[in-house]
Parts: sequence; C-alpha cells; structure tokens
Amino acid sequence: MSTLQETIHQMGRQARAAAYQLAQLTSDEKNAILRAMAGAIRERVPELLGANDLDLAAGVEKGLSAAMLDRLRLDATRIEAMAAGIDQVATLPDPVGRIMEAWTRPNGMRIEQVRVPIGTIGIIYESRPNVTADAAVLCFKTGNATILRGGSEAIHSNRAIAAALGTAGAPEHAIQLIPFTDRESVAALAQMDRWLDLIIPRGGKGLIETVVSLARMPVIKHYDGICHLFVDRAADPAMAVSLTVDAKTQKCGVCNALETLLVHRDVAAGLLPQVAAALRAKNVELRGCEATRAVLTDVIPATEADWTTEYLDLILSIKVVASLDEAVAHINTHGSHHTDTIVTADTAAAERFLREVDSACVFHNVSNRFADGGEFGFGAEIGISTDKLHARGPMGLRELTSYQYRVRGNGQTKGPVQR
Amino acid sequence: MSTLQETIHQMGRQARAAAYQLAQLTSDEKNAILRAMAGAIRERVPELLGANDLDLAAGVEKGLSAAMLDRLRLDATRIEAMAAGIDQVATLPDPVGRIMEAWTRPNGMRIEQVRVPIGTIGIIYESRPNVTADAAVLCFKTGNATILRGGSEAIHSNRAIAAALGTAGAPEHAIQLIPFTDRESVAALAQMDRWLDLIIPRGGKGLIETVVSLARMPVIKHYDGICHLFVDRAADPAMAVSLTVDAKTQKCGVCNALETLLVHRDVAAGLLPQVAAALRAKNVELRGCEATRAVLTDVIPATEADWTTEYLDLILSIKVVASLDEAVAHINTHGSHHTDTIVTADTAAAERFLREVDSACVFHNVSNRFADGGEFGFGAEIGISTDKLHARGPMGLRELTSYQYRVRGNGQTKGPVQR
Repeated sequence: MSTLQETIHQMGRQARAAAYQLAQLTSDEKNAILRAMAGAIRERVPELLGANDLDLAAGVEKGLSAAMLDRLRLDATRIEAMAAGIDQVATLPDPVGRIMEAWTRPNGMRIEQVRVPIGTIGIIYESRPNVTADAAVLCFKTGNATILRGGSEAIHSNRAIAAALGTAGAPEHAIQLIPFTDRESVAALAQMDRWLDLIIPRGGKGLIETVVSLARMPVIKHYDGICHLFVDRAADPAMAVSLTVDAKTQKCGVCNALETLLVHRDVAAGLLPQVAAALRAKNVELRGCEATRAVLTDVIPATEADWTTEYLDLILSIKVVASLDEAVAHINTHGSHHTDTIVTADTAAAERFLREVDSACVFHNVSNRFADGGEFGFGAEIGISTDKLHARGPMGLRELTSYQYRVRGNGQTKGPVQR
Repeated sequence: MSTLQETIHQMGRQARAAAYQLAQLTSDEKNAILRAMAGAIRERVPELLGANDLDLAAGVEKGLSAAMLDRLRLDATRIEAMAAGIDQVATLPDPVGRIMEAWTRPNGMRIEQVRVPIGTIGIIYESRPNVTADAAVLCFKTGNATILRGGSEAIHSNRAIAAALGTAGAPEHAIQLIPFTDRESVAALAQMDRWLDLIIPRGGKGLIETVVSLARMPVIKHYDGICHLFVDRAADPAMAVSLTVDAKTQKCGVCNALETLLVHRDVAAGLLPQVAAALRAKNVELRGCEATRAVLTDVIPATEADWTTEYLDLILSIKVVASLDEAVAHINTHGSHHTDTIVTADTAAAERFLREVDSACVFHNVSNRFADGGEFGFGAEIGISTDKLHARGPMGLRELTSYQYRVRGNGQTKGPVQR
C-alpha cells in the first residue's frame, strides 16, 4: 500500500469506529452538536474568508473561469447561509430509530424493521466549498460518519470548514476531510469497501463516471436531467404555456429544468405560436423537428443529438408527436428518467402517462421544477438520485438511512429436524 | 464489440423493451402467466429430465464431486417442487402499484410515492438449475425482465427450464437465458449498465467478488454469515443450550447457522459443560479460547482465524467475554453483519445488544436460524442481502421493486423569479 492508501484506510477504520458511536447518539444529542456546528461556522467567519482568499488567489493564478471562481467564492452571506442550513437540519425530524414496520409471527416472534444509519459515507465533490458543510451535516444528522474528498481548488476553504465543524463536540472522526486532492485518492476511497458503505459523487458526469467505474461499494448517482413536458391534445393552452415557460426559464441551469417540449399534433398549430412567443420573450432559443418548423418556420432544425442533450441553458428542443404513445416512447428512449410532465385535462391520458413513463418523477399539470427535496417537503436534500436502487428522485434524510430487523422472542427454535 | 458482447447487448435492449410491457401487466395477468409457467414445467418433466441427464453425464465425465452432482440433479420431486414454488408465488400479494406514502403540499400538489418494478435484472448463478425458475419467477412477479447467466455444468437443464417458462404467455424476452457460460459473458453483463438496472450474483464468494469488481450497476450481495449467539450473564441456561444447539445443528450448511458462541464469563463455568455436552451429542467439534479451555479442558484451541471463519459445518468456535460491551465489539469487528443473537432475561441488556450490534438481523431469545424470508413471513425469498443499501437481510418481493413519485396538480408553477 502507498502512503496515500494507508492514510485513507486509516481514515476508513476511524470512520467505522466513529459510526458506531454516532449510531448511539440520541436525536437531542445530535441536534445540540449541529447547533454548535452552526455556531462554530458563525464564529469563524474571518478564518473562513481568509482560507477562501487563498483558494481564490490560486484560482485566479490558474486562470479559472469567472463561473468557477464564483462557485468557489465564500462571502459573509454565503457563510451565514451555510450556518443557517445547519440550524435548519437540527430542526428536522430524525429518521433513525423509526419503526418502519412491525408484526408478530405465528410462533410468537415479534419482528421490527427499524431505521438505522447506513454507517460510513464517502462524499466526492468538486469546487463548491459549502458542500463540505451541507453533505457532512446531513450525514451527521442521520448518524453516519463521512469521509469528504473535495476538489483541489477549494482545499483551503474545505479544511477551514471541516476544522470549524470539528470543534462542535461530535465524536472524533465523525467528519474527516481527505488531505489529498489527486485522482489516486478517489481510487483509494472507491476501492475501500471494507470501511466505506456508500459513495456519493457530487459533481459533473466525468466525476460520476470515474467513481462508477472504480467503486466496489454502492454509488448513488446524480446524473443528467433531460426532462420533458408533453402537451396533450386535451391540454388547457394557457396552462401549457405557463408550465412550459416556468419549467424552462424559472432557473435553467439545474437538473429539473425542461429540455424538450413534446406537443400533440392535434394542437400543434394552435399552441406552438403561443408557446414560442412566450419563450422568446424570455430569450429562449428554439430548435424544432420538421413538423414544428412547419408551424414555426423560423425555428432552428433539431438534430438527433438535441433529443439527448441537457442544455442547462436557455435552449429548448420541440417535437410534435402523433399520440400519447409516441410521447411516452420518446421520453423512455431519449430521456434520462429524471422528471417528466404531462399537461392535459384528460384524466385517463394523465394516468396512463404517470404509469407508463419510467422516470423518478412523473407530473400531471405541475412544473418540472418541483422535482426537489425542498418542494416535496423533505426539509433538506442531499441530491436527486437517477438510480433506481435504494433511493430514486429527491433524496432527503430518510434516504441516508438503512434498516435492521430486530426480533424478540422467548426461546423459539426452528425445530429438531436436521436436514 | 465482440459477437458475445453484441449478443448480450441485444438481449439487454430486448429486456428493456420487455420491462416496459411487464410494468403494465395487472397482478391478475401476471398470476395467470405464473400458473401457466408452473403448468409448463409439470408438462415437460420428460424433457427436463432428459436435458438434466446430459448435464449429469458431462458432470461425471468432468469428474464433479458427489455434492456438485447432487446440486445439479433434477428428479420428479425437485421438478414438482419447482412448479409448486411458482404456483405459490402466484398467490403472494403483488407489491407493484402499492402507494408507499401520499401527502399534499401547501400549494395543493398531491404527491404519491408508488412502488414500481426495478426494470431489468441480471442473475448470475452457478450449478443449481432450479435457480433458473426460482429467480426468474420472483422477478417476473414484480414486473422485472431478467437476463439469466447460469453455470456451464447446468446449461442443458437451464435451457430446458427457460424454454418451458417461455411457453406460458409472458411478454417476449421477459426471461432470457444467455447462451454463453464463459467468464467473458459475466464481464459483458456487468458492464452493460445502460440496459441492466441491477445484478444479483447467487453463488460463492469468488463469483460475488468477480461481479463486484466488474459491475457498473448496483449489485446486491449475499456474502457469508458469520453468525454469533451471546449468552449473557442473565441468560436462562436451558434456553441458552436449546438455542445454541438449534442455531448450530438444525441445518449447519446455511448462512444463518451459528458459527461463534460468546459466553459471559460470570456464567461460563456453569454453562459451558452443559452446552458442550449437548453439542457433542450432535457431533459438533468445539474450538475454544483460553478461558473456554480452562473450563472445557479437552477443547481444541481456537486461533484468530476461527473468529472470522464461516464453517458451514458441525464446528463451533467458543469465546468467553468479560461483558456485553466485549460481546458487541467482538461481533461488530469479527462478524459479517448477518444475524446475531443475545440470550438473556435482562431486557435492558437485550435492548442494548439489539441497538448496538450492526447486523441485518439482531435477535433476542430466538434462534439465528429464523433469519429467513419464509420465517419472516415474506412468502418468498430471493436471498439474504449482506448489503446495507436498498435491501438488507431477507429479501422478499418488495425488495425487487423501486418506486417513483407521481405528482398531480392544477397548473402549479415554481414562480416568476429567474435566479
């Protein structure tokens, strides 16, 4: 083993030991520590800004883009938002210890399925230093120990945040930051299935792909959102326009923003001009299929690639479809199974769409932008899973737990027969 | 791509298409097909026996052990058991479509979390041909398409079983058997994350390790059971003896059988002779720590390796511990987090044990052998997961499902602000 691997394995062992202690803390104990963490962040604003200045200066030297530098930047407002976020997590209900189901067997055994922490979680992330606090705190609330591996650009900020969190009285090694930022440290973490129960990569597709190909333990992935809105022939035109504009333009750089609009051919001629006018008023570039361009003659032709592109920008592809079936097939084939909406006054069509579209979130007469842990009422969100196992769609605290079966009896044996 | 990879990718595409059809079948439709599958198995007994004869003859030629040949063998009784198992799955409640939770948000959106099939599942297994039917049928009941990759020794039997299942009216490609049995086919399947949502390896540790290291999609693992029973100082001695004998000897070659007995030192001198006598009457070989051997002088010394060995045989390691804390620490450190039991009349000690032992199943005054989907009342079991994500412990039909969020509204938009 290299020194790097040894260091990371040592952190793994420490995380496991911390996880056993964390699992035994009461909700009140965890919440008191969380409030102390928020306090520590507020007390250390000058240190955090100083550390962040080092990262920003290095970033300028490295020639990072303005957008990258903005993601990296901490200021008093962002630090207060971080602290307020921690305080808010302290107020949320704790899923750990919750009995999910309980039943008694004919032989008298009482079985309980009880939520417990997952154990140890690795978080691999890129340039935003606030992830250090956001992710660690959600894992802490659910009794999990975290090993954080942030990007090199934010290393000083990340260290300062982790150091602040570490003063709040949590069990030792509950939150650890890997001191390395090279790719080898990602590999070492991803291979360490003995000490790490789960990895969550938070970042771009390249990072997720790397983790997926290396990891021996479960990975919860947050891939693209190629989200659709289908205007059925029975759609209310005003609602169709309003939801399309909201889903595309309310915030376009996020995974639940609209990327492709599907329109039933029976209403295309009437609806497309209204939608186009509303979108163009918001500076949205439109790319259309042949049938779309028959109505909106000045629209750029869409290519095959447009149906599988997450623009994250003020661009929308538009396709006219012959039927609900074609809309469903298009979404299941070209989409990313994230969030897809039907607009219709026809309940039977809506129910078919909700049942047949294979996506984490399927919406009827609601903007795609509501696919969000906060909007769902989860109080906090670690991300939106594009996986189907363990957690799908918006992930709250509950999705950071596992369960165990606790069985109580009075001497039940399976039987005398040895087969 | 090689021909093998192309064939397997083609099967993947077909499985995905079949999965969309399967997801739309009603429970009644699926149950009717299941009963037809059972009927097809019963009608084809001669074909199945003939195919099995080819495998057995090849196995004899290859010099397979008697135990291997027994695992491979089909006879009228085993074929009827396979058919009866399918009929029984038809009678179980279908988890698909079940509403897990439903709530209304302040803006009027109604959110439902609904169980849906996972989609496409790969099953990689070894010599038992009945897995072809057992696994495929549980996946079918839950609306999943399966791609089966069985071992080379059972290829004729597997083909005959898959062919029989294929006559029952299921959607085309709902159950597919890979025609290759070499290792390259495992790699091709494990890398195909576009078409396969989950892999379940059913077999020995070597097979699971191979799949884990190759797989890009989630894997549900069924690793060892290094199961413990801890006799607390407040244990009823007769119950302690009875549960130990049951857990060790009722069936010793299975993952929920007892492998290590822990005894509180305050009761070791009185209890160990009784336990030893009862176990020796069942021909169990005992291996003990120093303190055990101070009481049972003729016991073989246990080495460090004994604490981490799954014997799957009539062998038991015994360790005397100073406290409940030491018992919990030993189990969490040396066990496999499968199923661990405390025997005690002290409720506080029992509750601490259930809370602090980090295993899928934690039992109080119940034999470890009850860690089983059937004994839990699940009606069917695809295995016992040693993972913490998605499914932990005995896995029934419910654990073969995912979920999606279905949201219904009346035009809700997120808001006018573009941030």
